Amino acid sequence: MQHIKQYVDEHRQRLLDELFALLRFPSVSADPKYKADVLNTADHVAQKLRDAGADNVEVCQTAGYPIVYGEKIIDAAKPTVLVYGHYDVQPADPIELWHTPPFEPTVRDGKIYARGACDDKGQFYMHVKAFELMMQTDTLPCNIKFMIEGEEEVGSSNLSIFVKANKDKLKADVVLISDTSMISMEHPSLETGLRGLSYVEVEVTGPNRDLHSGVYGGAVANPITILSKMIAAMHDENNHITIPGFYDEVIELTPAERTALNNAPYDEAEYKKDLDVVELWGEKGYSTFERTGTRPTLEVNGIWGGYIGEGAKTVLPSKAHAKISMRLVPNQTFEQITQLFTKHFLSIAPANVKVKITPHHGGEPVVTPTDSIAYKAAQKAIAESFGKEPIPTRGGGSIPIVALFEAELGLKTVLMGFGLDSDALHSPNEKYDIFNYYKGIETIPLFHKYFAELSGF
Amino acid sequence: MQHIKQYVDEHRQRLLDELFALLRFPSVSADPKYKADVLNTADHVAQKLRDAGADNVEVCQTAGYPIVYGEKIIDAAKPTVLVYGHYDVQPADPIELWHTPPFEPTVRDGKIYARGACDDKGQFYMHVKAFELMMQTDTLPCNIKFMIEGEEEVGSSNLSIFVKANKDKLKADVVLISDTSMISMEHPSLETGLRGLSYVEVEVTGPNRDLHSGVYGGAVANPITILSKMIAAMHDENNHITIPGFYDEVIELTPAERTALNNAPYDEAEYKKDLDVVELWGEKGYSTFERTGTRPTLEVNGIWGGYIGEGAKTVLPSKAHAKISMRLVPNQTFEQITQLFTKHFLSIAPANVKVKITPHHGGEPVVTPTDSIAYKAAQKAIAESFGKEPIPTRGGGSIPIVALFEAELGLKTVLMGFGLDSDALHSPNEKYDIFNYYKGIETIPLFHKYFAELSGF
Repeated sequence: MQHIKQYVDEHRQRLLDELFALLRFPSVSADPKYKADVLNTADHVAQKLRDAGADNVEVCQTAGYPIVYGEKIIDAAKPTVLVYGHYDVQPADPIELWHTPPFEPTVRDGKIYARGACDDKGQFYMHVKAFELMMQTDTLPCNIKFMIEGEEEVGSSNLSIFVKANKDKLKADVVLISDTSMISMEHPSLETGLRGLSYVEVEVTGPNRDLHSGVYGGAVANPITILSKMIAAMHDENNHITIPGFYDEVIELTPAERTALNNAPYDEAEYKKDLDVVELWGEKGYSTFERTGTRPTLEVNGIWGGYIGEGAKTVLPSKAHAKISMRLVPNQTFEQITQLFTKHFLSIAPANVKVKITPHHGGEPVVTPTDSIAYKAAQKAIAESFGKEPIPTRGGGSIPIVALFEAELGLKTVLMGFGLDSDALHSPNEKYDIFNYYKGIETIPLFHKYFAELSGF
Repeated sequence: MQHIKQYVDEHRQRLLDELFALLRFPSVSADPKYKADVLNTADHVAQKLRDAGADNVEVCQTAGYPIVYGEKIIDAAKPTVLVYGHYDVQPADPIELWHTPPFEPTVRDGKIYARGACDDKGQFYMHVKAFELMMQTDTLPCNIKFMIEGEEEVGSSNLSIFVKANKDKLKADVVLISDTSMISMEHPSLETGLRGLSYVEVEVTGPNRDLHSGVYGGAVANPITILSKMIAAMHDENNHITIPGFYDEVIELTPAERTALNNAPYDEAEYKKDLDVVELWGEKGYSTFERTGTRPTLEVNGIWGGYIGEGAKTVLPSKAHAKISMRLVPNQTFEQITQLFTKHFLSIAPANVKVKITPHHGGEPVVTPTDSIAYKAAQKAIAESFGKEPIPTRGGGSIPIVALFEAELGLKTVLMGFGLDSDALHSPNEKYDIFNYYKGIETIPLFHKYFAELSGF
């Protein structure tokens, strides 16, 4: 541990400057207008892997954005850790709500504010720097491979093709990912599961053109009104999702599992205060942890239709749109849920409108084992660097490729995240605590050390 | 009649070129970025009134956009017609749906395509040119005053102040407006009523920031979902509006009035085909003419919230917005309906969101007499120029100032419109038939002729 702290202390400012340089790339994968920036980010990440000491670094082309690969094989007999991360970020809008520019990292009160500060540039870059540390201090105890993609925020569709085509190259003993969060620095935790995702876009068309709401209002179905009624019908009065068969495959937790989950520290008053809401909302009969971690959900991520500019326009629009995503839990599958949603949504559409549904992307839910060598190594690493045993939790987010790694590479994943729920991922003013960044760089080498030891090396 | 046809034939091309010049001004009153264009339009209209022979032409300043005034008093003893129109237009968006630029008038198939072609530049300009015709042919039979405003599409709030302050200047015997439509050129009609309007904007706020829909989804009220449920609740299963007291003041038509109204030519198959809808939508128990002309309605004119860009973003947004307008009928008043809406909308908002309601503007409904000298003059004028008696109809649109003229000036209005419902007012590809434009210029002098004659001159 001593050499780790010493190295981080000696290079403190540079480690931060390098992250800032990475955060200045507006690598928004969802918006084509950032294409050049996303490609430049991939080249930058590749160079940083080379600088840190990785061999065979490549920017692997795909049908979409490239995947950056690099490795250090010290001894074929020793275990291999495959580190996954993503260099792409969510769109920054609504841009006007940012206190400082999203792609000009700014430190306030010990926190780095920037899009991607936590998700996932700040977190994957800890692994690059921890690797550099192990190389520079000659303490790399096992083989390591890096796979950093650029399409995580848009569904990783090309990563799955890449993984299927490169099973030998990606051969490893475990996947290590830092793209999740802890309860707090006082309550370090390890996520043992992730929700899956089904993301669709719906378009409701009424009349074939925008109409004058005075001339036609009251005689023609308004697609906004109809879409609103359809969205309203997706949850019943107990906030259960009304799609027939939606819950059929859901595995209910055992009373013991529910108790363990609800034992994690949670202050509802604090939770409400942080969000400035007087009342929470959710599926009847479940706690907040259960609602976000172990129950499937349906959220409208965006809606638009008609006149949304300044002032007033008396239009009865031709179309209304919504982006809707569902979070899935074991044993739901995203193809099946996408089908159930589509069938149901079409079935509740009245004859006076036309409905088009376009699936965006999806991913399967996963539960990670807590009895594996890799999980134990993560426990020991966190216990040593934080001085506390990590609490096992269920994450509400989705990292679709975790299920992919299991299916295609036969690899389990360890989710060793250092973010916080309050980091405002996907929101304006996303941040990452400088403390967490250094803490991650210090903890990761310990994971490799214990993973090698527990593997008999 | 002969001298009229002859004059129009001789000046056919110039009459069209002048309208095109007027249509090229992007006089969008709702959007501040067109301010200079709107002001230039007012100056242009003033010059055209002078050129046509009007006296005392002024561009009257207001707190908003100016009102263009001009007059020709030939004999104080003779009756005076006050012509009202508006030189401002609706926003052109969604701009991408226009086949040709909205502010570059283009003729296709005998129709002029441009924003404002019908509403209201094409229609008020017929009066300017008909006035020129009467001046040039020395056939002006009565006094005439012009009041052309620039804020009709945003509620005419400054016009009401102007009218109250200039009752002497505006002294007249009748108001003549061409800002409505006919059933068709084969079925000329005269509107005998207009609906009022109450336009509001609502904002629903959930959490104080955009959230990651995976981390918080299922535990916090999504303002889009809540707004959708609130909008869905505004109409019951019979499409009656659910606001308590909403219909209390509504005057039901007599069976005779309903029969007369429904005698107007209407081809439901044609109506549906034109809009490309397989089924109509509306208040149970009423026909399409009744729904659009004699019943109050509530339409969502716009909705937005969350991520509406390209691709996917898994956000649980902080806010959702909608623009909602209600069309009113006698004896509803817009202040009362706005209050009823506000009270009800707030009352159905769950405790897990905050709701803000901002009234935009409104206007009172009106019914115009069909036994007045002015109405009879319009009937005779149309009968002569179209060779057919006009059918009385109820218009679904709103011209809030018609009620204002009655209240402040004690004047009744004649709605002699030459547009068509298919002119796509407020929509992309707004058009006005060249035939209707010339027909209006030919009919208007006849109105003045018969109005003077029936008044005893």
